[in-house]
Amino acid sequence: MATFDFEGLTIYYEDHGAGRPLLILNGIFMSCASWKAFVPAFSAANRLLLLDLVDQGRSDQVDHEYTQELQERLVVAFLDHLGLDQVAICGLSYGGEVALRLAGRHPGRVDKLVLSNTTAWTSAWLSDIGRSWEAAMASHDGHQFFATCIPVVYSPGFYQARIDWAKAREELFVRLFPPQVYDAFARLTRSANSHDERANLGRVEAQTLVISSQHDHVTPLDNQLELVRGIAGAAHLMIMDAGHAAMYEQPAAFTAAVLGFVNSDSADIEID
Amino acid sequence: MATFDFEGLTIYYEDHGAGRPLLILNGIFMSCASWKAFVPAFSAANRLLLLDLVDQGRSDQVDHEYTQELQERLVVAFLDHLGLDQVAICGLSYGGEVALRLAGRHPGRVDKLVLSNTTAWTSAWLSDIGRSWEAAMASHDGHQFFATCIPVVYSPGFYQARIDWAKAREELFVRLFPPQVYDAFARLTRSANSHDERANLGRVEAQTLVISSQHDHVTPLDNQLELVRGIAGAAHLMIMDAGHAAMYEQPAAFTAAVLGFVNSDSADIEID
Amino acid sequence: MATFDFEGLTIYYEDHGAGRPLLILNGIFMSCASWKAFVPAFSAANRLLLLDLVDQGRSDQVDHEYTQELQERLVVAFLDHLGLDQVAICGLSYGGEVALRLAGRHPGRVDKLVLSNTTAWTSAWLSDIGRSWEAAMASHDGHQFFATCIPVVYSPGFYQARIDWAKAREELFVRLFPPQVYDAFARLTRSANSHDERANLGRVEAQTLVISSQHDHVTPLDNQLELVRGIAGAAHLMIMDAGHAAMYEQPAAFTAAVLGFVNSDSADIEID
Amino acid sequence: MATFDFEGLTIYYEDHGAGRPLLILNGIFMSCASWKAFVPAFSAANRLLLLDLVDQGRSDQVDHEYTQELQERLVVAFLDHLGLDQVAICGLSYGGEVALRLAGRHPGRVDKLVLSNTTAWTSAWLSDIGRSWEAAMASHDGHQFFATCIPVVYSPGFYQARIDWAKAREELFVRLFPPQVYDAFARLTRSANSHDERANLGRVEAQTLVISSQHDHVTPLDNQLELVRGIAGAAHLMIMDAGHAAMYEQPAAFTAAVLGFVNSDSADIEID
Repeated sequence: MATFDFEGLTIYYEDHGAGRPLLILNGIFMSCASWKAFVPAFSAANRLLLLDLVDQGRSDQVDHEYTQELQERLVVAFLDHLGLDQVAICGLSYGGEVALRLAGRHPGRVDKLVLSNTTAWTSAWLSDIGRSWEAAMASHDGHQFFATCIPVVYSPGFYQARIDWAKAREELFVRLFPPQVYDAFARLTRSANSHDERANLGRVEAQTLVISSQHDHVTPLDNQLELVRGIAGAAHLMIMDAGHAAMYEQPAAFTAAVLGFVNSDSADIEID
Repeated sequence: MATFDFEGLTIYYEDHGAGRPLLILNGIFMSCASWKAFVPAFSAANRLLLLDLVDQGRSDQVDHEYTQELQERLVVAFLDHLGLDQVAICGLSYGGEVALRLAGRHPGRVDKLVLSNTTAWTSAWLSDIGRSWEAAMASHDGHQFFATCIPVVYSPGFYQARIDWAKAREELFVRLFPPQVYDAFARLTRSANSHDERANLGRVEAQTLVISSQHDHVTPLDNQLELVRGIAGAAHLMIMDAGHAAMYEQPAAFTAAVLGFVNSDSADIEID
Repeated sequence: MATFDFEGLTIYYEDHGAGRPLLILNGIFMSCASWKAFVPAFSAANRLLLLDLVDQGRSDQVDHEYTQELQERLVVAFLDHLGLDQVAICGLSYGGEVALRLAGRHPGRVDKLVLSNTTAWTSAWLSDIGRSWEAAMASHDGHQFFATCIPVVYSPGFYQARIDWAKAREELFVRLFPPQVYDAFARLTRSANSHDERANLGRVEAQTLVISSQHDHVTPLDNQLELVRGIAGAAHLMIMDAGHAAMYEQPAAFTAAVLGFVNSDSADIEID
Repeated sequence: MATFDFEGLTIYYEDHGAGRPLLILNGIFMSCASWKAFVPAFSAANRLLLLDLVDQGRSDQVDHEYTQELQERLVVAFLDHLGLDQVAICGLSYGGEVALRLAGRHPGRVDKLVLSNTTAWTSAWLSDIGRSWEAAMASHDGHQFFATCIPVVYSPGFYQARIDWAKAREELFVRLFPPQVYDAFARLTRSANSHDERANLGRVEAQTLVISSQHDHVTPLDNQLELVRGIAGAAHLMIMDAGHAAMYEQPAAFTAAVLGFVNSDSADIEID
């Protein structure tokens, strides 16, 4: 619904509702459009900010390699553009990695941090799985891309139960995605290879909630526990019976966890 | 802060803040006083209703046995007293059992239901553990009561890390609780023995969130999964690194889950 | 060390030691050679039979598609060739699927059944992940094959800790595997697509042990629980801190579970 | 079937079969009689040694307090009595604590160590639960003892499914146990209060297997993970769908894990 200029790139964003601002940062295959069904709930009591990162959705694609430091710069520029000193940020997977950079490197800009299915660093295991994603993207073959990257982001039970929906999505991807979308996915994937914010976890000042899923086959739980242990006072919820894409599988649980954490002031609860 | 008459008994309750009404039903050893630290967060955007059930806190004790049907009647009378057609209810353990009765037997009175560390029925395992609780209560010995009933409601790690706090609480219990408090606890314990709402799960119309804890040594996870499977559309969150008394161990995670679920309208989120 | 003829194909097998016969059926990327380090322990008190299935290791490859019914026929022919009426079978993943066919369709031939990281059927989730494997195999590119198929069979922690070993294995695969090996892998993958023995679980007469791994990112635990629930009296052990390839990650735990189950007579233990 | 003198006490033991010697050390409410159904399987290929510790079963009771150092001395004396330099030891819970003392303080005497549902130390949580056990024992009331100490050692599902058996056991306990048995249980419970072998884990030289249970409501999994991390090369298996008393709930899985680990030589398996 709006754009702004970031270092010569046109960046797409959406600005819904009013209230405590909540910025959402997308997972790698997501975009502002992914949140369509969530906008009413998420903007009912909040100013909801959706943002397509570089190489995502309706934001510009680039013709060079980069790291997530680019996305960090983009988010800072976006907050400056809106004149927002401080926001709550909820990041999912890739978006959680960028959110973590923000919270650790610009602690004054983030008052609440929600990290959904996020890791503090790209292990060799994740990096090598990422290579398989890149190969599938490089093929520009939508079916190969789908089979390689999509089933694993869902829990096996959800995927099996909605197999017709999954097959329809595969056809949609094949029909809609031109080669440059796969190239953009590949750049995004590579930009996360150097991700390692483990040394900055102690610098996060935002109240933090880590959201895991019971059946996450992409981000290992042990990596998420590193976040819980490294970020002072981090709370930790698990969405049961969901895979990596928990927001799609269990929207009510995801919505409750994110909005409840962002909108409640629980930091001062002292049990005696 | 207020009382009302229920079948000749004086019942204590608290009424904080304004907004969508949220009634909390206590676990067996809890009372309105247990929520003191939570009142600011829980009444910031809601009308928070705290209620001491029969034999709890500052409500009257009785001199006869009863079942949870008595507590169900009490809650209905309480809602009538306040002139509330419908409320959100969050019940913990024993309070969750009463909340489940309300939602299944008076579906029109409950629009949101949060069941924290709750079972749909009292299995023989729980019932026999309950007998050990009764024996400790019958001794009127505060130390025996504490050792039998309190460590198991916390996660081992939390209890060990706060052992000085735990020991201070034990002394407090011993000093404060007269024999009739232990007798009231024993009646409450026995009143749950006949609890079995499994046949009514399908009658629950409220949007429901089941909250479990990773280290619950009192309510088995399998029993909580019966709730998730039996109540249509139930969402399920697990509070990580917490025991049965999750609200005390992880107040931020508990607060986020409860308030987020009660205050967001996620029922209509349709993923396509 | 020996071969026999099966329907015109030369099949490789190894026959080590003496004692109660134990036949091992390989996972999809394994062969008799994978067991080299295990032979001393596994043949100390047993006659250990290793077998390369069709399209595996040193057995012949074929030039046509098939289903696991072919591998089932092969195993029956192998037992007949050795004159063995009945054996214990331990199958891993793909090999577990074949072992399950044997036990359900030829119950008299199997007296003990160990199913390690095995599913009773190929769900749509597994089948679509299998398509990504096929695409990587079809590329005949060893690096793409490795990145797609190998990291996920290990636990993230194990893979990260042994990344030098993993990289050396990748180079080895690239150097050693000619295109026809990838084609054989692809046929094996496709042959499992129609796997569905759910209706035959009740026909298994062998004493059965299901072995799962804590961090199995390939075979969902829920699928393994279907085996436990469907096969009468099945025992269930989980190898902690291991991925799908548990035998490599935790050889002592794997060896204990398999040999202990095969060599002990626990069926008659009646607790009173 | 035999006795020997230990510091003036008559100690009962059983010596079954022949082969690699395996000594079993009992959990707190167990005795040699608990193993009756297991003797055929456990003595088929091993010399099975069962031992009633001080205050257990048919061994003498004492009239003074002690620590587990007494039981450690007893086991050393027992091995000396039999002329055994080195044995495999499988200890369950209390017996595992004693086994751990042996392996850490007399490393030359233990070649294989199996620790089932065992902790390296008695945390405040366990110690305070122990106080509730002591209070129930001090009542000399068999029903109170049973309700306090027995349901929690089983998984909820097992206990519920075999409730008639459980009730019959309760009646048996009430009928058979004279007051001095409860006093002996209480001394055993107190003798574990000072248990803390965390500093000696690094001294264990025996090949070690830690066996946990999925639904252990007595020994927290985190405590068992301390053993796995502290003892070099420890293997770790979990018996699924079982509680603290896993041997009773899943005898086939328990038997496989113990005998497989004791009788296989897996230490030299090197994966390349």
